[in-house]
Amino acid sequence: MQLYSYFRSSAAYRVRIALNLKGLSYEYMPVHLLKEGGQQRSAAYRALNPTALVPTLVDGDQVIGQSLAIIEYLDETHPAVPLLPATPAGRARVRALSLDIACDIHPLNNLRVLKYLKHAVKVEDAVKDEWYRHWVMEGLTAFEAALLASPQTGRFCHGDAPTMADACLVPQLYNARRLACDLSAFETILRIEQACEALPAFQLARPENQPDFEAPAAK
Amino acid sequence: MQLYSYFRSSAAYRVRIALNLKGLSYEYMPVHLLKEGGQQRSAAYRALNPTALVPTLVDGDQVIGQSLAIIEYLDETHPAVPLLPATPAGRARVRALSLDIACDIHPLNNLRVLKYLKHAVKVEDAVKDEWYRHWVMEGLTAFEAALLASPQTGRFCHGDAPTMADACLVPQLYNARRLACDLSAFETILRIEQACEALPAFQLARPENQPDFEAPAAK
Repeated sequence: MQLYSYFRSSAAYRVRIALNLKGLSYEYMPVHLLKEGGQQRSAAYRALNPTALVPTLVDGDQVIGQSLAIIEYLDETHPAVPLLPATPAGRARVRALSLDIACDIHPLNNLRVLKYLKHAVKVEDAVKDEWYRHWVMEGLTAFEAALLASPQTGRFCHGDAPTMADACLVPQLYNARRLACDLSAFETILRIEQACEALPAFQLARPENQPDFEAPAAK
Repeated sequence: MQLYSYFRSSAAYRVRIALNLKGLSYEYMPVHLLKEGGQQRSAAYRALNPTALVPTLVDGDQVIGQSLAIIEYLDETHPAVPLLPATPAGRARVRALSLDIACDIHPLNNLRVLKYLKHAVKVEDAVKDEWYRHWVMEGLTAFEAALLASPQTGRFCHGDAPTMADACLVPQLYNARRLACDLSAFETILRIEQACEALPAFQLARPENQPDFEAPAAK
């Protein structure tokens, strides 16, 4: 399998966690989102994935975009170490938590949106940063409430083994810290993050452990 | 079952289509997104769904948020008239198409985001409308390309029966037309929309056929 990824992409980071949790090896295909006007917008990458977004998973003849579709595909084709619960109700909860992040937080703070705010709407950096923090804080506040409200929250977001929801949560927290969001109120989220980060699958998926990692430029 | 819905919510509209395609009856629970500062933000609704977003499905003891999680749940618990294909590769394609809309178009043009642009970022209406059209047009251009690129596109987004992807596409088109997006270039999308709108399940799910429908105010 080949994973088209960018070290800092939250969506690619989710899939890296899932592949690692399942112990699946893959070839890392870097797509630099900033170089050459964005390599994801190149004709070659668009031929693979018309959305011009990372990640893309290639598994033989199958070419799959969208991180959650990829994780579900991996879960169906490699059912050992399941990333979704066994019951429809459990799966619904894990999917809803995953979508709380993938639909209601991350799309509002990904790179193309922040660039559009800056260059097309022409807002100042402070307004852009405030936009970012607003959606992250609103989304994580709801996520913390959802975790607290359910007896199914365990050592991880759902029970005592990591699921797709944890694979979504950890990259979003990494992302939030880059813009200096204050996460201290989210006690359940931080407890679960700690449980995740204790696992090699999560550690190996971190941006700084990818072949295309670049240290941030000094300010 | 009870569906907490708002007639104009794209996400609720998706679930209404899915329920209708499966022939499942449900009680319609209106949540007015504009009245009383947004009924979805009331304590009563937040107790049901901490994200303060519609839709929410209640099925006995199960309370499920996020439209795609609800549709997958319905598909697992009521497998007649499947809304996802039988193979992992087919399911991955339908999920990815659904997420192309649910993650990469709709979150950027939903009500709370447009309100934030207007009231917090304080952009003029023309800039807000241009933002809206930018993301819709970029997203639907990619969606059209994805449909054209695949031999699996049929009378509907995937093959010759409607799936979750069609249940996502039709509400997004309704939404796009409200802001006068020019959809004429999207020949495949419009052809599929026509096939969907020929089905009673899609017609009955339309905003104007909901109990809480309100005609737009005259300008």
